[in-house]
Amino acid sequence: MKNAIKQVAITGGTHGNELTGVYLIKHWSSCPEEVQRDSFATELHLTNPSANQQVRRYIDQDLNRQFNIQDLNNPELDGCEQQRAKALNTLLGPKEDPRVDFVIDLHTTTANMGMSLVFNTSDPFVVGMAFYIKQKMPHATLFFHPSDRLEDNFLTSVGRFNGFLIEAGPVAQGLLNYQVYSETRTAVMHALDYLEKVNAGGTLDLPRQMSGYQFIEKIRLPEDSTGEITAMVHPNLQDKDYHPINPGDPLFITLAGETIPYQGDTTVYGAFINEAAYYDQHIGLSFMREVDITLNDVN
Amino acid sequence: MKNAIKQVAITGGTHGNELTGVYLIKHWSSCPEEVQRDSFATELHLTNPSANQQVRRYIDQDLNRQFNIQDLNNPELDGCEQQRAKALNTLLGPKEDPRVDFVIDLHTTTANMGMSLVFNTSDPFVVGMAFYIKQKMPHATLFFHPSDRLEDNFLTSVGRFNGFLIEAGPVAQGLLNYQVYSETRTAVMHALDYLEKVNAGGTLDLPRQMSGYQFIEKIRLPEDSTGEITAMVHPNLQDKDYHPINPGDPLFITLAGETIPYQGDTTVYGAFINEAAYYDQHIGLSFMREVDITLNDVN
Repeated sequence: MKNAIKQVAITGGTHGNELTGVYLIKHWSSCPEEVQRDSFATELHLTNPSANQQVRRYIDQDLNRQFNIQDLNNPELDGCEQQRAKALNTLLGPKEDPRVDFVIDLHTTTANMGMSLVFNTSDPFVVGMAFYIKQKMPHATLFFHPSDRLEDNFLTSVGRFNGFLIEAGPVAQGLLNYQVYSETRTAVMHALDYLEKVNAGGTLDLPRQMSGYQFIEKIRLPEDSTGEITAMVHPNLQDKDYHPINPGDPLFITLAGETIPYQGDTTVYGAFINEAAYYDQHIGLSFMREVDITLNDVN
Repeated sequence: MKNAIKQVAITGGTHGNELTGVYLIKHWSSCPEEVQRDSFATELHLTNPSANQQVRRYIDQDLNRQFNIQDLNNPELDGCEQQRAKALNTLLGPKEDPRVDFVIDLHTTTANMGMSLVFNTSDPFVVGMAFYIKQKMPHATLFFHPSDRLEDNFLTSVGRFNGFLIEAGPVAQGLLNYQVYSETRTAVMHALDYLEKVNAGGTLDLPRQMSGYQFIEKIRLPEDSTGEITAMVHPNLQDKDYHPINPGDPLFITLAGETIPYQGDTTVYGAFINEAAYYDQHIGLSFMREVDITLNDVN
């Protein structure tokens, strides 16, 4: 069977201050039966221990942007996370012919994005996993960001399928929130159950289409001429991830309290609204569009 | 008049990843009239620019634990924040005979502590400021932690009065939340108005007593024999700062999902529940007791 899954990697701590994945990996290392299934092997990895030890997102570079094929094969990239990406590529990949079939990478966000299922491919095998989890967890959001697997720079792209990123929030960096921890644990259970069921060749009774959101662009916070931030996310927008932003709606508010509206002419949807990890690049939120995602076939 | 205030310092970024104070100081540096009052001078300081640049709480030590008189006078303490504390003591103090009358230090917390007014003295002049602000912002909480000014290790203790710490939350580290920013700005306005009114010698019509919370002790997260965290704050307790914790109430929950109850025999109240900054010490929350705080006299 072309889709038979033999080896699954669950990865946590790719961003060293996102502790949910770190502690789930520690938990499953003590209780491996929870992630064991009959038809495939599950391996657990803490992917950025140096950054985790310092409770920082990264030491030199964002590890989850280092996995495109050119960068992995560029010997001149030798920062901490660039080296780590190559080591992970050797461990899980190599990307051109991966040992691991599927990577499930665990992330958190300071934004109010709930249980977001991020998948970077329209491959029905992966879309099927997203649909399956959303059937079980109807409050989950499908975050669709299709890309070419070899060009993709996420860790999840080193598996044979361009895998799966679980992004749960809101939770501050550097701490554990049981609700976020528990939701992430549940989503991974469903993901593994899905793989087990697909391996067994049974019928999954998934819908042909589900609604989700597709990334458009990142929106920068307003700055002055010296590059200093002069405004922040407007309170009307705070915690309103996946809600519509209509032309004229408040987007930012200056340090002095003046509202800056959205000046586009089409409705968009916000995500990663006020994500702390993007402050270093002065990014206030992402614009998304609502999309119907089609499941073409499984097996 | 013995209490005449001539020089007030507002300080921000003492913890480098608490951006609210940093951006309020930047805002007021552009709009100094907002913090000007007729009867005293206001100065603005970013107190830990190195940590702020790296968006970390601190580089070597927690700056807001470096101000007791022995440490300030100990030449062997030469870490980044230890040196910085001495420089701030020279700038604002010296502690033994301070140039600055009053320090208002701006902090944030990842805990759901709302607008917390932290004051480390029962001096009626300082208690009066807390009462005045709470009159104007009734949702604010009085967080009372009396200590000897020379022994106190907070930055606020280098002023002539053992000053005032504004602790607002919840907000993740490394970002701005307009509600927290705006509440902090409002509280500082009231603090300055209070100083102006006291300087004018008028009657303030403050209550003789208000209810607040006094710190008892910090409570560590459960650990295994290797010192690893094995549990987190129980979801029933998350965001319930200043709510009662009764004997037998859930306190923590293990990575596997087992509840650990509070085993004390008296009712306590939580604060700094799941504060990210205390994870490095594996501290899950603080226990507080409810107290009646008495205002003996102003002027």
